[in-house]
Amino acid sequence: MNMPITVPRDMLGRGQVLSLAEAQSLVALYLPPPSVAGESLALEEALGRTTMQEITAPEHLPAHARSIMDGYAVRARDTFGASESLPAYLAITGEVLMGERPECGPAEGACFRIATGGLLPPGTDAVVMLEHTVQVDDTMIEVVQPVAEGTNVIGVGEDVRQAAAVLPAGHRLRPQDLGLLAGLGIRQVLVRQRLRVGIISTGDEIVPFDQTPPPGKIRDMNAVTLAAMVRELGGIPNYYGIVADEEEHFRAVVEESLAANDLLIFSGSSSVGVRDMGERVLDSLGEPGIIVHGVAIKPGKPVMIALASGKPLFGLPGHPVAAAVAFDLFVRPAMRHLGGRTADGLPECRTLRARLMRNVNSAAGRRDFIRVQVRPAAQAGEFAEAYPVLGKSGALSTMVRAHGYLILPEAQQGVGQGELVDVHLFG
Amino acid sequence: MNMPITVPRDMLGRGQVLSLAEAQSLVALYLPPPSVAGESLALEEALGRTTMQEITAPEHLPAHARSIMDGYAVRARDTFGASESLPAYLAITGEVLMGERPECGPAEGACFRIATGGLLPPGTDAVVMLEHTVQVDDTMIEVVQPVAEGTNVIGVGEDVRQAAAVLPAGHRLRPQDLGLLAGLGIRQVLVRQRLRVGIISTGDEIVPFDQTPPPGKIRDMNAVTLAAMVRELGGIPNYYGIVADEEEHFRAVVEESLAANDLLIFSGSSSVGVRDMGERVLDSLGEPGIIVHGVAIKPGKPVMIALASGKPLFGLPGHPVAAAVAFDLFVRPAMRHLGGRTADGLPECRTLRARLMRNVNSAAGRRDFIRVQVRPAAQAGEFAEAYPVLGKSGALSTMVRAHGYLILPEAQQGVGQGELVDVHLFG
Repeated sequence: MNMPITVPRDMLGRGQVLSLAEAQSLVALYLPPPSVAGESLALEEALGRTTMQEITAPEHLPAHARSIMDGYAVRARDTFGASESLPAYLAITGEVLMGERPECGPAEGACFRIATGGLLPPGTDAVVMLEHTVQVDDTMIEVVQPVAEGTNVIGVGEDVRQAAAVLPAGHRLRPQDLGLLAGLGIRQVLVRQRLRVGIISTGDEIVPFDQTPPPGKIRDMNAVTLAAMVRELGGIPNYYGIVADEEEHFRAVVEESLAANDLLIFSGSSSVGVRDMGERVLDSLGEPGIIVHGVAIKPGKPVMIALASGKPLFGLPGHPVAAAVAFDLFVRPAMRHLGGRTADGLPECRTLRARLMRNVNSAAGRRDFIRVQVRPAAQAGEFAEAYPVLGKSGALSTMVRAHGYLILPEAQQGVGQGELVDVHLFG
Repeated sequence: MNMPITVPRDMLGRGQVLSLAEAQSLVALYLPPPSVAGESLALEEALGRTTMQEITAPEHLPAHARSIMDGYAVRARDTFGASESLPAYLAITGEVLMGERPECGPAEGACFRIATGGLLPPGTDAVVMLEHTVQVDDTMIEVVQPVAEGTNVIGVGEDVRQAAAVLPAGHRLRPQDLGLLAGLGIRQVLVRQRLRVGIISTGDEIVPFDQTPPPGKIRDMNAVTLAAMVRELGGIPNYYGIVADEEEHFRAVVEESLAANDLLIFSGSSSVGVRDMGERVLDSLGEPGIIVHGVAIKPGKPVMIALASGKPLFGLPGHPVAAAVAFDLFVRPAMRHLGGRTADGLPECRTLRARLMRNVNSAAGRRDFIRVQVRPAAQAGEFAEAYPVLGKSGALSTMVRAHGYLILPEAQQGVGQGELVDVHLFG
């Protein structure tokens, strides 16, 4: 489904460099609703997948009142006023066997032995924990502390009530979520299918990474990196190879891969010819065409984003470092949205508070992403140490030496040595 | 390989409850060196796997000096002293074509057009960026700022030098690591095989989750949760079903699964009979036997850890919440170690700094793990808000409502409302 076009064409980010926030809002405005269909999976296969609809409990959990302590099942009123100096004496007249349902319970003034997880016998309403009793002999205990009704007991439906919502739609399934569904006897779960992501490399100077490049050409690094990033997010990368500076061929590959995927990434050549070709093709696929063309971030500025047939196309910079940053900023949230994940407002990537060990400078009006290496704190209780990774912007080895990056907002012109920073760790 | 036993048997954690730090050190002391063999994988299949050995660069990256800017390839000395008021005039006598090696370069006092990624033509040693030139006409530019040798150029091997170490052994392969290996023409990488993890459920009261439990019995939630946790860490879970309170059968299943796996997890019944049985079996498999039996943490106290045949066995509590916490604290680091990961000193789980919205109490001498729900900050610039999740300790729904947990160390008796805390987010 296509969103109605609500922004005049001359307000799109065409030819003018946008701030990161402007660019991200434009993309969010144009992205269609979650597009992928659902599939029913066995619980064991659903880890990391996104729920398609709210899941409700088919039954109470637990189905019967159970003890959550080792001790004695009692009537709470039999322990009223009990204390060290004036204990309540209760006769032990039975035991709850694990995994069995007690057919009858203790008489008034008596109790049954019970272990954690045991079913409360008829007539009892609380459990006195072992530590609050003194064993008089095999048939008698002293209770030295009173219990209220329900103490040390998990009641019927107290974990989850029948028909209650257990998980919302758009939720990524974690191990404990699967455990709870298992506890409720749910065997199958309806989840979104994996997103299919087409990846195209462009440029006359690129050869497949497993070929030896002749002078002037270089190996394709971006395809491998981007495919792995897609896989980390649970998507299926489909690689369409390297397309050189030939417009009709490029158009054919884009159209073919757009039809077969939910979104498209092409990592761009730096050559002006290829950039112009990409622009022409992306703008001819349908409305609204290109919505972002250049973002004030470093690295990553020459980002081009278009929408056609209700699917987003991301033209990422050719520089591997810039391509990875642009992926994080634009493709990752788009994949999340199209894959049906509900925004929970929590940070996307894991962050670590660290002390910056060297000054970092930045140009005003541009959002800078500074790669840093993190080392454990010199002593306990101190913050971890963040060292900016030096190296030319195109050097992929800087991304390998780095553990993550820190962000310098547009208004900030640098961060001083010794200041605390939030490092966004790589996965 | 078995480590020599260096701790007297009466110093092991038998019968006495250890602090978390004591228990973790004992396990670290006894764990054998990384045990899993290597396998050679295609680059595209190696995401998330651990390198078996250091990887060195088979060639220089880049193989030739390249421009990292759009501009003009020049001799740096031709720009010496250039300024706005006294620019250097250079004749444009050629262009570097993308993907081609320039056979000859500009004469002295001349320059070639060059795009980002273009190969430096013979004789040139720097690139003047477009922004620092003024085009006089099609054949001439003014250079308004001097460049030094190497400016805007990435030299041969400047990203990675041939024979230099690119990645250490014991490193988890991230997308950018695979990208750099691709850039170096490496097609296969030697990684550790996945860890095989045996999972056994015990207890008379447990039935498989896809069966309807009769009164007194409950569904097995732990097997599903633990298998998913193992999978998240890149291991292969092998499930051996539910073993009831029958010692010889239990022993047979433990021996079979120990032989077929790198480590073993059984999630314990709360019944005293099963606990005793587990203790007898674990202590009869060989030296050193049980090394940890009870840890001062909540939830999770009844943890039992043994070593036999150089492999660790983890007896986790029956309560799903306690089992998940104990997994995080003991099984996760053991899997990391046995799988050959080198400790990098960085926190294992992602953390988020948040403001605690309610008081939390804790008993001294015990390490408490408080489940919290995190909500985005009420306004920009503020910290996220952490709300303790209320509910009985055995309720798995508390783990589902929670986004993570915060840790109260043994010495701390609580945290007050409004204080800043580090929330350890679930994956």
